[in-house]
Amino acid sequence: MERIEHRACFGGWQDVYRHESKVLGCTMKFAVYLPPQAANGKLPVLYWLSGLTCSEQNFITKAGAQRYAAEHGVVIVAPDTSPRGEQVMDDDGYDLGQGAGFYLNATEQPWATHYRMFDYVADELPALVEAHFPVGDARAISGHSMGGHGALVVALRNPGRYRSVSAFSPIVAPSKVPWGEKAFGAYLGEDRQAWKQWDASELVRSATEKLPLLVDQGGDDEFLDTQLRPQLLQAAAVAAGHPLQLRMRPGYDHSYYFIASFIGEHIAHHAAALHGEAKVHAGVAHEPHDGCGRH
Amino acid sequence: MERIEHRACFGGWQDVYRHESKVLGCTMKFAVYLPPQAANGKLPVLYWLSGLTCSEQNFITKAGAQRYAAEHGVVIVAPDTSPRGEQVMDDDGYDLGQGAGFYLNATEQPWATHYRMFDYVADELPALVEAHFPVGDARAISGHSMGGHGALVVALRNPGRYRSVSAFSPIVAPSKVPWGEKAFGAYLGEDRQAWKQWDASELVRSATEKLPLLVDQGGDDEFLDTQLRPQLLQAAAVAAGHPLQLRMRPGYDHSYYFIASFIGEHIAHHAAALHGEAKVHAGVAHEPHDGCGRH
Repeated sequence: MERIEHRACFGGWQDVYRHESKVLGCTMKFAVYLPPQAANGKLPVLYWLSGLTCSEQNFITKAGAQRYAAEHGVVIVAPDTSPRGEQVMDDDGYDLGQGAGFYLNATEQPWATHYRMFDYVADELPALVEAHFPVGDARAISGHSMGGHGALVVALRNPGRYRSVSAFSPIVAPSKVPWGEKAFGAYLGEDRQAWKQWDASELVRSATEKLPLLVDQGGDDEFLDTQLRPQLLQAAAVAAGHPLQLRMRPGYDHSYYFIASFIGEHIAHHAAALHGEAKVHAGVAHEPHDGCGRH
Repeated sequence: MERIEHRACFGGWQDVYRHESKVLGCTMKFAVYLPPQAANGKLPVLYWLSGLTCSEQNFITKAGAQRYAAEHGVVIVAPDTSPRGEQVMDDDGYDLGQGAGFYLNATEQPWATHYRMFDYVADELPALVEAHFPVGDARAISGHSMGGHGALVVALRNPGRYRSVSAFSPIVAPSKVPWGEKAFGAYLGEDRQAWKQWDASELVRSATEKLPLLVDQGGDDEFLDTQLRPQLLQAAAVAAGHPLQLRMRPGYDHSYYFIASFIGEHIAHHAAALHGEAKVHAGVAHEPHDGCGRH
């Protein structure tokens, strides 16, 4: 693992690392923001998954999240959106192949060899992060658009792994919209039954852990009615009794100006879940006891 | 004048306009952030001048300034950094020609025809902005690197025009550093006497208006000792008795991560100067009087 960027930011450090991913079979980059509090001990960590065409750079340069991460003492890890490199299959479309990994494990060739972003994001990357940075096991996950889909799916498929989950303008029902149909058809094949395990609106129906979902959606998002359709998640959540807070934001579009406007609220939401649990632990640790080992 | 971008951001609007500049003889773009308070009346305006290679996009996508502008009720206008277009002279270097206008009026051909960024920023653009947007005549100016030089020079050359001025990592003495020597040699010719009127460290010696200068400078800026040399401005300001607050920021580099970290403090500084004066006016307007026209 090699550090390739290191920049002071809001009293902490915005870094970028390069490493060899075993799961993906290629060199990957990911960004880590270490707030000032990281100098003093382990912190909780928020994983951010970006959308179509993005790399690890978009979120760290455009969202303005570091200010809030520094305020709340949260590490933010932002991976790339797909496997990368000349040996990795690609496609001419912006919505398939490199930059469009959809946070799933592909089963169909030629994609299945490298396209295992689900395993990367849910397992390999957290193991790497937890081994090399001052973070504990308090994890949260969020993302935008394709990455909002990723955050919801990764959290719903890994009960107990994340303390909170949120999404901006997520593709909530990829099985039913053009972006998802194209990607799932290529990565997973034509059996639509197999798609359901990668579709948040399907997963929510059988989720055993009722982790509350926080979703912000711009009312003037150019993809709202064609690709995003948050009402599909809402209907599924209502039917399943799964807690969902869907906040429509009139006037906002699909851009980083929307994310920047509300990322502070999302980080506060995650910090409450992440530190809340930490405070319970701290409370237990500081419970008065008689000091003579009678427990 | 045509609006080409319109995006909701922190309750206001991040817009981009295109217009024909008479001064520059080409089509120009500039960005305007209108905070929520712009719906209710005239606001003060902060002009932001960007650095080498930048367009009107860099600041609005990377600085995170909209949050603070919305907090303080300040409009932010960010122009491009040079004249643009196929008919406009250019150079292969990133530090001369398009993207590198240096906020001066060129006197040497082939540059003099279009390169009049000083007149554009100080006169044509404010006149356009004040005619088309809900802004009054309370103006502030700031910028980064080449744009920090621009902000200092434009303010020092226009006493009474700006209520406050600040800069991030400015080129404080362009006459004495490679970036400035190359640009001034091309735009202004080889007579170094003529360069002094475009050099903040020279202008400060004879400034009639003692407008306080606020400068933030990263201590690990890769251009600190070669191109920026803030101690030259500091020495000139001390000699002239010109108020200067130079804040060295250990660890920070020349990037937008540095700007993002401290732009909130700069906007608060400008807002205090801009609204402070406005409040004095308001106080005068609301002075009790006897209502019978005896004034």
